[in-house]
Parts: sequence; structure tokens; C-alpha cells
Amino acid sequence: MPNVRLALAQTNPTVGDIAGNSEQIFTVVCDAAAQGANLVVFGEMALSGYPIEDLSARPEFLAEASNAIKSLAERINNFGLGEVAVVVGHPRAIAPGDPDAGEHEWSIAQNTASVLLGGKVVGNYAKHHLPNYSVFDEYRNFVPGDELLSFDHCGLRFSTVICEDIWQDGGPVAKIGEAGTDVTLILNGSPFELDKIARRVELVQHLAKTHNCAAVYVNLVGGQDDLVFDGDSFAVDRQGNEVARAESFKSDLVLLDIRTDGVIKQITPPRLHPASEIESVWHALVLGLRDYVEKNGFKSVILGLSGGIDSAVCAAIARDAIGSDAVFGVAMPSRYSSDGSITDAEDLANRLEIPIRTEAIENFFQSFQGQLQLADLAAENLQARIRGVILMGLSNAEGHLTLTTGNKTELAVGYSTIYGDSVGGFAPIKDVPKTMVWQLARWRNEQATKAGEVQPIPESSITKPPSAELRPGQVDQDSLPEYDVLDEMLELYINKHRSASQLIEAGFDPATVSRVIALVDRAEWKRRQGAIGPKISGMAFGRDRRLPITNRFKSH
Amino acid sequence: MPNVRLALAQTNPTVGDIAGNSEQIFTVVCDAAAQGANLVVFGEMALSGYPIEDLSARPEFLAEASNAIKSLAERINNFGLGEVAVVVGHPRAIAPGDPDAGEHEWSIAQNTASVLLGGKVVGNYAKHHLPNYSVFDEYRNFVPGDELLSFDHCGLRFSTVICEDIWQDGGPVAKIGEAGTDVTLILNGSPFELDKIARRVELVQHLAKTHNCAAVYVNLVGGQDDLVFDGDSFAVDRQGNEVARAESFKSDLVLLDIRTDGVIKQITPPRLHPASEIESVWHALVLGLRDYVEKNGFKSVILGLSGGIDSAVCAAIARDAIGSDAVFGVAMPSRYSSDGSITDAEDLANRLEIPIRTEAIENFFQSFQGQLQLADLAAENLQARIRGVILMGLSNAEGHLTLTTGNKTELAVGYSTIYGDSVGGFAPIKDVPKTMVWQLARWRNEQATKAGEVQPIPESSITKPPSAELRPGQVDQDSLPEYDVLDEMLELYINKHRSASQLIEAGFDPATVSRVIALVDRAEWKRRQGAIGPKISGMAFGRDRRLPITNRFKSH
Repeated sequence: MPNVRLALAQTNPTVGDIAGNSEQIFTVVCDAAAQGANLVVFGEMALSGYPIEDLSARPEFLAEASNAIKSLAERINNFGLGEVAVVVGHPRAIAPGDPDAGEHEWSIAQNTASVLLGGKVVGNYAKHHLPNYSVFDEYRNFVPGDELLSFDHCGLRFSTVICEDIWQDGGPVAKIGEAGTDVTLILNGSPFELDKIARRVELVQHLAKTHNCAAVYVNLVGGQDDLVFDGDSFAVDRQGNEVARAESFKSDLVLLDIRTDGVIKQITPPRLHPASEIESVWHALVLGLRDYVEKNGFKSVILGLSGGIDSAVCAAIARDAIGSDAVFGVAMPSRYSSDGSITDAEDLANRLEIPIRTEAIENFFQSFQGQLQLADLAAENLQARIRGVILMGLSNAEGHLTLTTGNKTELAVGYSTIYGDSVGGFAPIKDVPKTMVWQLARWRNEQATKAGEVQPIPESSITKPPSAELRPGQVDQDSLPEYDVLDEMLELYINKHRSASQLIEAGFDPATVSRVIALVDRAEWKRRQGAIGPKISGMAFGRDRRLPITNRFKSH
Repeated sequence: MPNVRLALAQTNPTVGDIAGNSEQIFTVVCDAAAQGANLVVFGEMALSGYPIEDLSARPEFLAEASNAIKSLAERINNFGLGEVAVVVGHPRAIAPGDPDAGEHEWSIAQNTASVLLGGKVVGNYAKHHLPNYSVFDEYRNFVPGDELLSFDHCGLRFSTVICEDIWQDGGPVAKIGEAGTDVTLILNGSPFELDKIARRVELVQHLAKTHNCAAVYVNLVGGQDDLVFDGDSFAVDRQGNEVARAESFKSDLVLLDIRTDGVIKQITPPRLHPASEIESVWHALVLGLRDYVEKNGFKSVILGLSGGIDSAVCAAIARDAIGSDAVFGVAMPSRYSSDGSITDAEDLANRLEIPIRTEAIENFFQSFQGQLQLADLAAENLQARIRGVILMGLSNAEGHLTLTTGNKTELAVGYSTIYGDSVGGFAPIKDVPKTMVWQLARWRNEQATKAGEVQPIPESSITKPPSAELRPGQVDQDSLPEYDVLDEMLELYINKHRSASQLIEAGFDPATVSRVIALVDRAEWKRRQGAIGPKISGMAFGRDRRLPITNRFKSH
């Protein structure tokens, strides 16, 4: 007989929906208890959703969270589960929350993990290291804690910490060993990012070995605006061996038996995990879109289908996320659209089994040009903006969320028309470089073949030279380097903070370096007005990269 | 003979333009020295502009700033001014700036004030309190310092601190008295905000009295994206009496003589200051727009003139900012435009002496509707989006910056069409509630009358009931409370963090409270894609108020 049957409760909360998230937590506790669990551990802020941003400064929000935690403890106890310990993350007010307090008193809450037992909150741990880099503003929103929480349960000693606490040195984590901890419980709200999963495991292994304890890492799952929590909760034993792992990109409940002699065994069957980085990215994008749609109460999405690779991949992601019936395609050919573009768009819609309608833009274009006589770039942008008007008109009339299909490369160099192809509430591939868009398309088609299904993306959308088709014979490489070169330059300049001279040292053509960097810098104002979309890289456009618009600095 | 002739150098730097700002600093030092100054004090980050945001993480930017400070010291010395002490703010790298360093090592610089003397940097002070609330992210961008910098010059002892250091307790400021300080030099990058100027003076008076020293507060001036630095640099003596004040909203150089016996005298003539809050706001909006235009290299602006009060006030601000020749108005009447609207728009253009052209939208509207047959709200939005297409087409063709004319009340409740009337790179009145838009119009007209000039804003634009004119007979109050009531509710809910029940307690109608709050919450996605504009309140939309889009919390 094990001492503790521990459940890793990997849930998908919705930010601000404290009642709904409480219900979800209660249901999962009941489910875990029915499977014999006597300790259930949830992710960071599972009660409120995460990140709550400046909701942390609203006293009535904090009061609601505080009441919900107490009610949850009582309800679990009243349901006869008072002997099950539940560890759950939530925001906890530490000041009365005077709304007249100055800005310096904004932080009135702590990012907290509470232990519920016997109908009561028997312990609170407040996160010590508050991440304030990348997409995180926790030093803005919370007051740090300073004390480790340790508690005994069923013959074992547990200590509790939260997410960033294990990514930085010092703080309560340093006291885990001296507290005599058998098992460290780590509550996380750790968003998906390429290459991040291995890093998490390394950190937890290091913690286990340093403090001679087992460790359980419970992450959230689900999309929240520009973040996708991938789940991937796991556990390691005292030697740092991985002994359990939950699903990626899905809610999950994983049960472990932990004996006092240190032996840990996963009770629930092993889960399958993505076999490649590209597969992970696909699932992240699908989950990010699905949750944005569902959590915001949309029933369907609409997007322009140009026959090109970006809109094809976005449509396939949308179909995988919310089903064929909920994805509406619109072909908006112009005088410059090739026949291939129109047939590729139709082919895509057939493959995905989504409706497509055609709204030619020629009449509108002539109507505007008859009066405005725009030339060159202004005329090219006009076409894109007419398409924006059509999509938003249909979105308003029929209630669809509009998707904008720009990729990261395009956003980086500003090759999009603001209020044109950029219209929409969500941008599924905004953090995906063009070269990875092609990889995703090929990967998704291969999966279809393996499953004996129709390949969703037309081969010709993958292989033809990319073009905006806004003037005769235009292709992207008329004015940009080849995409494999461009993406490598952008990776260095944007993600790696490399300077112009470092790019030149790395072998890129000086004139091209200078031109590409100028394009990136100049497009800041457009990116600032862009739709949100799922972050998959270490440096996504948006709150991950905060630069002035008015900025005369030129990298050299 | 005074011991020290001190110059408050209130400059308007441009973010990222280190070469240009260095030149500006050198010129001002020469000018001050020519007037006998032997100590010249600049604002926070006068060398780099402020705020630099994530430029703080770019090693080549920090290297350029570091070289510029050394060159500046040498150049001043070589010019024969080695005996003039110059105190100037800049970002200073404290780590080699390894671009492969993890996110936790992003902060590699300090917000620094350096003392230049005899061709050398003779002292550095690093800001201790890093504001990380409201629009500020300094804990993200900088490493705090911990040591007061004190130095002797011409028989007096000076100590140096930076901005936020005097707004919070503890830190180096606490040691000013024991350091034997005669004069504290406070370098600031403090943006304009209603009611803030008096607060600054109180803090500095408190500092002077606490530490028995005189104090000199030097602020930046100028617009930077959504911030407007108002200048208003000042000095107080040991008793806390204000003894000097620089211009509001203009670059300035104010000279003081400081004797060892504590007597301070302003040498430069006294400046005139705004007589009212509304006058300050007007100047802030004018400066914010002018600097956005000039610092981003635009020559002109374009905006739609509807005949309504918002576009009239924006046009008048633009005329005051960059002159009649650089402001282009476009009237875009529809079938629902009243005759009055068209004549009011023309009247405005005549009063401002700006060109106006008319682009009726009827043909475009019919063209779209012939194909799309949109009804109700979708048809209303269509009209606004056609106007957006026209404005952006003309902007692209002629190179104007497009102004979007929405006010804060409208942005709060989402009464604007995204990609329609919201198009543009800058939003002059985005932080101005509707009731204040009227006040500004009346104030500006009164000023014109006092100056014997034509009133810029047609009386009928001020007095007629506001209407979007997107359907027959529509007025704003069909679906919104009266603006004075609405603005009061929004002030409480948004600026003061009051809850729904607190609004109801304050006497507002419960159903209206619930409806208005729902409108505000639901419009978050639109605001996120909006143009930047000058912050004048304690809580501007944008980086001042960071809330999730996906957010089911309802205030109660």
C-alpha cells in the first residue's frame, strides 16, 4: 500500500472565470479521489486562470478569488473528501485593496499556492521569484513571498514552490533540503516555447538531486491570448529519473503512487507525446486558436483564402481546432490573381471540406480607382484593404472571428498592408517564420497520408513561389532575400539580439543586412496595431519585444 | 560673486538618436557656459531619450551610449569648458552584454547619471527605485543601483538621484543629509499627467526640508510615443521655497546662482505657465502630436473631418502643432450626413486655413452593398471602413501621417469601427474624455478671441448633439448615457478601479452600470489594435492598463 497517491491535475482554466474554474477544480478532485488519490496538485493560478495581468489590482476580483478558495475547501470537505489534500494556485490579496492607493501600492496580491485539507485552507505559499521579462509582468502585478511552505501528509513531507522559483537562484527553494522534504510540489504556468520542455526537466532534475527529494511539476494547459500552456506535467524521483508525464496540449489527470522508501510509480497509462518540434508547434497553434475561439464565445472563424501557403496553413489549423463546419473561407480574386491561385484556394476548401465563397474585388477596385486614382504601392494596398473590408463585413454580419494569416517573417519586415490583410482578431501563425510555415504544411500533409486521409494542403500551394499578387508577375523575392536567408537573419537580429556588424561577420551581405534591419525597425508601428497570436518562439512580436515606435537607433 | 551658477538644461531628446542628442547636449553646455554657468544639469536619459524600453538589452546600443558619454566629456574639455561640471542621464552597460545570455540576464544596464568634468567621467549614479507600474517597465529594463553619488564643486556639495528615487521611501535618497549635501540634483523623465505638477513640488520640498539642502529638479520635455514630458523643471531652496521654474512644454535653459550661505536666485527671466488644467492639456496634446510627426520624419498629417467635435479638435491641435500647410482634411459624406455636417467641416477648414477635399462615399457604399448586401451594424461599419480605405489610400499616395480622432470615452465603450474610423498612426485625443473634448474646444476658441483671432472651432460643432451619422437620425445618446454621466462612470471604473457595486452605491443606475462595464470589457481587443496617443490621465489605455483580452471576469 502506497503512502500517497498523488494526482497531477493538469487543467485548462479560463482567465477571470473563477466560478467556472472552481467547478473544474472540484470535478477533478472528485475524479482523482474516486481513483484513490489523497493528494491532488493543480497548476499555477488554476483558480483564476493565468496570467491575470492588471486584474491583480482589482479588489473585487481578489475578493472573489479569496471567497472561492474558502468555498472550494468547504465543498470538498462536505463531499466527504476532507482527507484529500488539494494544492491549488490562485491570486491572494494581502492588502485591503484601497482603490485610492497610489500607483506604488498597485501590487496588493501574491501569486499563491494554498493547501486545502479538512474543509480549511491550512497553508499558503507565495511565489518568491516574480518573472518580469519576456511576456511576464509579475513584478508589476504581485508582491513576492519569502517563506517555503512545508507540510506533512500521509507520512511524507511536502514542500511547495511556484514556477519561476525553480528558474532562479536563491529564495525559498534553497531551503527545500533542510526542510526535510520528501516531495517538492511545483505549480506552473509555463507557456510553450520551442526547446523549453527539456530545460524544465533539467531544472527539476537538478532540484531533486540537490535537495534529495522527488519532485512533481504540474503545468497548466490551454491557450490564453498569445500564450499556449502545453501541459507536459511530469514527476521525477530522488535520483532525478522521470517517472511520469502527462499529455501535451490536453487536460490530463495523472496518478502516481509514492512510497516512503522513495519509490514512485505512475498508475495511469503512459501518454503519447509529439515526436518532433514541428508536431509540437502544430498542436500549440491548434490549441491556441481553439481556446481563443471558445473562451471568447465565438462559434466560427472566417479567413481569406488566397491559394498561398499562409492562408492554407491557417485554414488547416482552424479546421483541426474547431472543425470543418466552423471555418469559412473567402476567395477574393483580383485582376492580378493567377488562375492557379483561385483553383488552389478551391482545392484547399475541398480538401478541408470547408465552405468557400468568392467575392471578386474588381468592381470595388474600379469604384475606388475611378474616384481616387491611386498609383503604385497605394494601389496595391487598396486591393488588400478592400479584402479587409469584405472580410470584416462578413464577420460583422455573420458573427465569425476573423483570422489574419500573416507569418512572422512578413510581420518582421512589414510586408503586409495595415487594415488590409492584417485585419482580424487572431493571427494563428504570427510567430511562425515563413520557412517553418512550409515545414508545418509538409508535416501536416504527411500525417494525413499516414492516417489514410486526404492531404489538407494542396501541393502547389507549398511549391509555388510566394506572391502577394498585387501587381502583374509580382513575387516576394523581387524585393526580399530568399526566405531561408531572410529567416536566418531575422532569427539573429530579433531573437538573438545580434547587431548589424555581427550579421555581417556571420557572412550576410552588408547591403542586405542594412536593408532588412531598416525594414524591421520601420514596421514597429504596424506590429503595434496587429492582432495577437500564439507565441512559440523565445521572442514573439507583442509584449515579448517592447520597443519604441519613435526610435532613431540603427543597429551597426 | 556666487559660488555656483547652475543651469537647468531642459532638453527634448529623441529616443535612439544618440548622435543627435549628444550634439544637443554639447550645444546647450556651450550656451550655458557662455552665460557663466559652471554646472549644467540635464534630465534623465537625456543622451538616449527616454524611455528606451527593450533597447536596454541591445549591447551595440549601450556601447554607442557609453562611447558618446566619453566623447562628450572630451569634446566639452577640448572646447575649453573643462571646468564646467555637466550632469547628464544615459543608459550604462554594467555587463558585457552576452546576447546568448538567458532571459534572466536581459537586464545589463543601469539608468545612470554621470558627472563630466575636466574631460572625464568623474562619477556615476545608478537609479535605485525602478518604476515598474503604470507605463513604466524599468525593473524589466534596468539593474538597480544602491549608492548615493556626492561630489564637491566650486565650494558646494552636490548629491545626485534620479526621478523615482524621490517618489519612494528608502534607498540612496535617505543618505542625502548625512552626506552633507548642499544641493540635490534630481534628473527626471516624468511624463505629464493631470494633477502631477503639484505632487512633484511637494516631494522635492519634503526632500529639501528633510535633508536641509536645496534641490534642483530637471525634467525632460517633448513627446515620445504615448508620453509627453512637460518640462516644468524647478528649484527649491533649503526651506523648500520654489526659487525657479522652467517653461512648460518647451525646451528651456534656466540659470540660478547658488551661494554657500544658501541663497538662490534665478538669473534668467521668469517664465509664463499654463493658467489652467485645460490649457496644460491642450499644450500637452499639441506637443505630443508635433514630436510624433517630427521625430518620425513625417511632413504632414491627414484626417477625416466629419463636422463633429472630435475631428474639429484634432484638426485644431494639428494646426497648432505643425501649421496650416501641413494639415490635410478630407470630408467623406454619406447618404446619412446632414447638411450641417458638411458645412461645419468646411467652416472648420476655413477657420483653420487648411485644405479640405471631399470624397463622397456613396459610390463605394453602393458598390459594396450591390455585392455584399450587409445589414444593420455591418452596414454601418462598412461606411466607416470605406472612409478608412480612402484616408489610408491618400496617406499612402501622398505620405501623410493619418490621424485617428476617437476620444477616450469612445475607446472605452468600443463605439468606433475597427479598421474604420480607428485607422491611423496617431490618436491625438485618445486619452481625452468626451466632456473634456468640449472643454478644450471652448478653451481654444476663447484663446483665439482674446488674441483677436478667428475662433478655430465652429460653434455648431460644439453645441450639436454628437452623432456617428451612420444611419438616419442617429445620435450617440440613443444607446449611451449622457456623456457627463458616462464619463463619471468611466473615471470610477477605469481610472479609480471602482467595482460595479461601488458605482451603484455612488448612485448610478444598476442596469446602466452593468451595460457600460460590459461594453468596456468587451472592447479590449479593439483597443489593443488601436493607435498610440498622448497620455494625460493617471490611467491611459495602452501600456498603462494591461488586461487580458480573453477575460471572463465581470466586476460586481
